[in-house]
Amino acid sequence: MQDKFIDKNMTALISDLQKLIRQPSVSAKNVGLEECARLVVCMMRKAGIKAETLRIGKNIPPAVYGEVRSKQNPAKTILFYNHYDVQPAEPLELWNDKPFSGNIRGNKIYGRGSADDKGELITRIKAAEAFLKTTGDVPCNIKFLVEGEEEIGSMHIEDYLQRYERKLSCDAVIWEFGYVDEKDRPIISLGMKGLLYVELSVQESVRDAHSSLAVLIENPAWRLVEALKTLRNKDGKILIKDWYKEVEDFTNEELRVIASEPFDEKSFKKEYGIKRFVGDKKGVKIRKALVGEPTCNIAGFTSGYEGLGAKTVLPSRALVKIDFRLVPKMSPLKQLGRLKQHLKERGFEDIQVRMIHGEAASRTKISNQFVKTVREAANEAFGKSIVSVSSAGTGPMYSFSKVLKVPCISIGSTYIFSRIHSPNEFARIDLLQKTTKCMCKIIKKFSNQ
Amino acid sequence: MQDKFIDKNMTALISDLQKLIRQPSVSAKNVGLEECARLVVCMMRKAGIKAETLRIGKNIPPAVYGEVRSKQNPAKTILFYNHYDVQPAEPLELWNDKPFSGNIRGNKIYGRGSADDKGELITRIKAAEAFLKTTGDVPCNIKFLVEGEEEIGSMHIEDYLQRYERKLSCDAVIWEFGYVDEKDRPIISLGMKGLLYVELSVQESVRDAHSSLAVLIENPAWRLVEALKTLRNKDGKILIKDWYKEVEDFTNEELRVIASEPFDEKSFKKEYGIKRFVGDKKGVKIRKALVGEPTCNIAGFTSGYEGLGAKTVLPSRALVKIDFRLVPKMSPLKQLGRLKQHLKERGFEDIQVRMIHGEAASRTKISNQFVKTVREAANEAFGKSIVSVSSAGTGPMYSFSKVLKVPCISIGSTYIFSRIHSPNEFARIDLLQKTTKCMCKIIKKFSNQ
Repeated sequence: MQDKFIDKNMTALISDLQKLIRQPSVSAKNVGLEECARLVVCMMRKAGIKAETLRIGKNIPPAVYGEVRSKQNPAKTILFYNHYDVQPAEPLELWNDKPFSGNIRGNKIYGRGSADDKGELITRIKAAEAFLKTTGDVPCNIKFLVEGEEEIGSMHIEDYLQRYERKLSCDAVIWEFGYVDEKDRPIISLGMKGLLYVELSVQESVRDAHSSLAVLIENPAWRLVEALKTLRNKDGKILIKDWYKEVEDFTNEELRVIASEPFDEKSFKKEYGIKRFVGDKKGVKIRKALVGEPTCNIAGFTSGYEGLGAKTVLPSRALVKIDFRLVPKMSPLKQLGRLKQHLKERGFEDIQVRMIHGEAASRTKISNQFVKTVREAANEAFGKSIVSVSSAGTGPMYSFSKVLKVPCISIGSTYIFSRIHSPNEFARIDLLQKTTKCMCKIIKKFSNQ
Repeated sequence: MQDKFIDKNMTALISDLQKLIRQPSVSAKNVGLEECARLVVCMMRKAGIKAETLRIGKNIPPAVYGEVRSKQNPAKTILFYNHYDVQPAEPLELWNDKPFSGNIRGNKIYGRGSADDKGELITRIKAAEAFLKTTGDVPCNIKFLVEGEEEIGSMHIEDYLQRYERKLSCDAVIWEFGYVDEKDRPIISLGMKGLLYVELSVQESVRDAHSSLAVLIENPAWRLVEALKTLRNKDGKILIKDWYKEVEDFTNEELRVIASEPFDEKSFKKEYGIKRFVGDKKGVKIRKALVGEPTCNIAGFTSGYEGLGAKTVLPSRALVKIDFRLVPKMSPLKQLGRLKQHLKERGFEDIQVRMIHGEAASRTKISNQFVKTVREAANEAFGKSIVSVSSAGTGPMYSFSKVLKVPCISIGSTYIFSRIHSPNEFARIDLLQKTTKCMCKIIKKFSNQ
């Protein structure tokens, strides 16, 4: 019944998603957040969901809360976690359309946020709407929490969870995103990596100088190069003392699931135009790395003249942004301390370390009943599915498990090569449709779980 | 007689310099070059100098040629070499005035090009004018060559010299710039370092990726860091094989002059806000390094997200701009080959090396008669002077010595801390005045040399 409703109303889903994309909401730049939150509230209300903005402080973007109480089964609650903010659109020159166009070509809707995370959000709103419009009720209570700081590290999500703990209480959480692989199999992911995001910066002199003075004045970019080189070897291994100290081996159950996870090396390499993987990884090593390998990634490096042609300048300042992915049991703050100690011991006292964001990793156990429920729903909606021990990405799942004490599972509509965080991000219309149906099935099955 | 004329006409000099500054002429961006060349021609003609633009090709900025023939001494010719182009003004946010303002505060005229090189050019035009307006003649032939590509490496100056060899023939060249130290002593510099300016770039994947994929996709910024670390040690020594092979020791005569060159460590460190020099250099080592030490300077590094806040991106591309300063006998092309070989041998075949510019070093011998002439003139105009074996900077002096086969000496009005190539560049009005007088004295003494 809901499936039919969804099929009939795809035009409305698409046009609502376009509206969301066309409202830029870049949290890194604090652009359009209030406007986008209001838009989400309106859209929820139109769907029959009781909606409001939650606030915990003046300069903190609001979260959107949505709720539909079930008449038939008011004792059970599922919560959808999403975010209305998006990554910056830069580099702008690489977009084929304007970054916030929402343009459609064939099966794809383009734009920053089309997949991450506005596409995911719309499937969930439309799933709730499908029950309400077809039955006048929902199989169990449905709650929504849509935050506005996910792309800058969800630094207030734990505050929101704690302040509104009772309002947000539930029995299970469906995470904000989920991938669908190149064979149209949804990936049911049970965990997320953690993150330590830092800026290292050096200011050597009070101002830029003529580069002929490089015989005398220290170059800050050289200082960063020297420091960076001590952090990681060319196979990606992090060289900071005790970095891996708390990392635990996979359990046998995890190893079995990892071994069964498919990964199409060929299409991955083709998609990114690469010939080899870091450290020449192959086979199961690739999947183990995605699930459980800590990384040290240079997300940005900036110093001196970056324009066309030549400028013979000795820059006064250099800055590098690094994101370290963490795995369960690694504490962001403890790792930050180790990084600082490492630099200090090697004489890099002139390098300033600023933590932008820290988040611990989290995993839901494979044996949890909710895993089975989601898997059955996914198999019905997509004909197949894959279970993954953990996503390679990061989100505040640890805060949810800590405060709400319920299982969190990630499943969604995002095609694995849909260029999230990159130019020409898109959402696939067929997957939005299937996923909306899948969400209905999850809700239904969960209410009987 | 000329001195008095100069004193009386400083207002005109200042206002003409402001006009030149207010005409942006950024060669790196190909902005305002034609306009600035026309302005220089007009200004020369107003001063009584026969002026025209020289052209050697369509998309090559014109050079300005100026000439005053002497009735009293037509057998001797001095040539002033200058440039009308300027460095890019970035970073714009660090300027107190608009970069092309020409604003005056106290003894200073601010703006990109105020010192380098429009301030120098104006003193020379005004020196010729002083003779013409006071005596109706000049002591010897005076020629001007003002190019428009100095700040991007003077890549066509040798073509100009060869094409117009007869027109430009002369007996001595006064170079485009000259420093005045913190004790108001003009530095008579007899040489310039060479330059090899390259871009190293890496493209690892066809597009930016989510940084969670750093377990698999190589990071181009990491590749550059690894490669760069092999090029130079922390004391500034270049680690490329045979890099120093052709470098010759100083002659005893050069060593004597270097030992006598003053260098105020304290005010230098204060000016740049630094506590130590690269490699902890002290005393005569500092002066030897400025005159004769090759460098490897990172002039720019760019990769990934450079905005505010966090973006968890794995960049597809990274680029570094490096300028290597060279000393006499080092060939830019040979050094480029050594750099490429170095990278190849270490497995950095994925790094693209692009040469932006190459220029050999050059020095005029200390014993040349023209050195004595310039020194006498400088001592008269400033009360004192310093001779330097070579500037730490680079210019196409090698091309001038090769084609015109005459001595080249650098002397000018640029206060040593006048922030050339940096924000808030300025020219000192008192030094412009003294230098204009000094140029008159050089012309006069040279005509009798």
